[in-house]
Amino acid sequence: MNEFNKSQDTHLWYTEYHTPNSGITLKVKETLLRVKSPFQELVILDTYEYGRMMLLDGLVMLTDRDEFIYHEMITHIPVNINPSVKKALIIGGGDCGTLRELSRYSFIENVKMVEIDEEVVKASRKFFPQLASNLPKNAEIVIGDGIDFVEKTDDVFDLIIIDSTDPIGPAEGLFTDSFYSNCRRILSEEGMMVLQAESPYFHAESIKIFSDRLRRIFGFIRPYLAFIPVYPSGMWEFIICSKNELDVSLKKADLISHFESSLKYYNHDVHKGAFMLPTFVKNIYGI
Amino acid sequence: MNEFNKSQDTHLWYTEYHTPNSGITLKVKETLLRVKSPFQELVILDTYEYGRMMLLDGLVMLTDRDEFIYHEMITHIPVNINPSVKKALIIGGGDCGTLRELSRYSFIENVKMVEIDEEVVKASRKFFPQLASNLPKNAEIVIGDGIDFVEKTDDVFDLIIIDSTDPIGPAEGLFTDSFYSNCRRILSEEGMMVLQAESPYFHAESIKIFSDRLRRIFGFIRPYLAFIPVYPSGMWEFIICSKNELDVSLKKADLISHFESSLKYYNHDVHKGAFMLPTFVKNIYGI
Repeated sequence: MNEFNKSQDTHLWYTEYHTPNSGITLKVKETLLRVKSPFQELVILDTYEYGRMMLLDGLVMLTDRDEFIYHEMITHIPVNINPSVKKALIIGGGDCGTLRELSRYSFIENVKMVEIDEEVVKASRKFFPQLASNLPKNAEIVIGDGIDFVEKTDDVFDLIIIDSTDPIGPAEGLFTDSFYSNCRRILSEEGMMVLQAESPYFHAESIKIFSDRLRRIFGFIRPYLAFIPVYPSGMWEFIICSKNELDVSLKKADLISHFESSLKYYNHDVHKGAFMLPTFVKNIYGI
Repeated sequence: MNEFNKSQDTHLWYTEYHTPNSGITLKVKETLLRVKSPFQELVILDTYEYGRMMLLDGLVMLTDRDEFIYHEMITHIPVNINPSVKKALIIGGGDCGTLRELSRYSFIENVKMVEIDEEVVKASRKFFPQLASNLPKNAEIVIGDGIDFVEKTDDVFDLIIIDSTDPIGPAEGLFTDSFYSNCRRILSEEGMMVLQAESPYFHAESIKIFSDRLRRIFGFIRPYLAFIPVYPSGMWEFIICSKNELDVSLKKADLISHFESSLKYYNHDVHKGAFMLPTFVKNIYGI
């Protein structure tokens, strides 16, 4: 790196287009990593506003500053609905943030993460140590194809979290009937599958199609929301899928008490509020 | 306008910097209006993603596409907490969106809006007819200085909504002790003042100072949240101020029933969920 690139006066901006006609723009200190893995292009930028930021194929996956929201909300909501989770599976999630949150629960005997791209795990260990280092012993990382894994495994899981990129590139196969059917097959009777489902503000049409498919395959779905500033529109959706109708209320008051002070988004009020959907979001689901 | 400006291929983008190092960028069809009023610069752009957009002194005030969220949330929350509102006052709100929502309640005998800048009202009538035309007869527009108004009036209001720009420019005096003290003076015993309070994600420090002031002057405050995609971070806060401790629950189940189908954000679930604050937001208030 030369002196010019080091200068804080370099007017280097990263712009992500959320639609063809809108986007966010962030001032960048420097590019920390740019690699082509066998699966995708991985870039780590250091930004002024959000700290370090991971991009996969040009889309923001996470930032230092707001990753806590996504990772807390994709894990603590389902575990607090069903606190008898013993075995959990993460498909994708190579940055290890979901693994970190899920591993907080010592009553979960095994948390297995199946990530296709080892480069993501390596980059996260190096550039996002708060996510990927110091994982407890109930956390297990498998480098492999999640589609193959759910097709071939005979294990049964109480919780499956699909922590994937959007349905373009290596994650394409994670949005198919056969993948979801296999997920349902390896889910315990009271189990849940949770996935991130884009922005109901920008992606209403695709969420409609996608959620109809999930309802058809699983039987029951429950969407919930979180504020994620760096994602398109800042309004982000997650969907829980289950074989039986789900009571999404909190089941145990003390489940997070020993680490609650280290959470920055999730709490028991948020648990209730996240399922309270604005009218235009309810309309997507016809609820 | 020449042929070049009419072309859809004009790569004209408007970028609003939310912090010195981050912002949103929107593709623009054309500039519909640019005037310097005695108070501020008013610009109306036609954007591809959000439709028409009003800027005051270079900051986005509202867009066709997402104005419903701000206007529904700043009005229906307080009225559904206290359905015995007879007299309501809006300070600012020249686009008339807050007036439109508040005027839906025929039991509110008078809704007075005091806007300093007539150009905003005129521009809204022309470019945002869904906001400013067809207002019912309980709606009254006064062009004048809100600071003077609350200082001099002997009227008493059950609801005061401060629908202002940020504390720079003409709205500066709306963020002072003396303005708030006057608002408290003209508030009925069970009355509420509501204001928009920026983004807890980007403006935690200023919200802390500001909310301490409101608590000191009024006695009690209750913050709540809404997703507003075009505003910084997409996470927007409102604060209700009252003289007595406030029960923010819904008081009547049928209050919005005759127009509920025309609302796109607010509903009775949202009413409950909006007060369920993430931990980092609670921390700003020490609650």
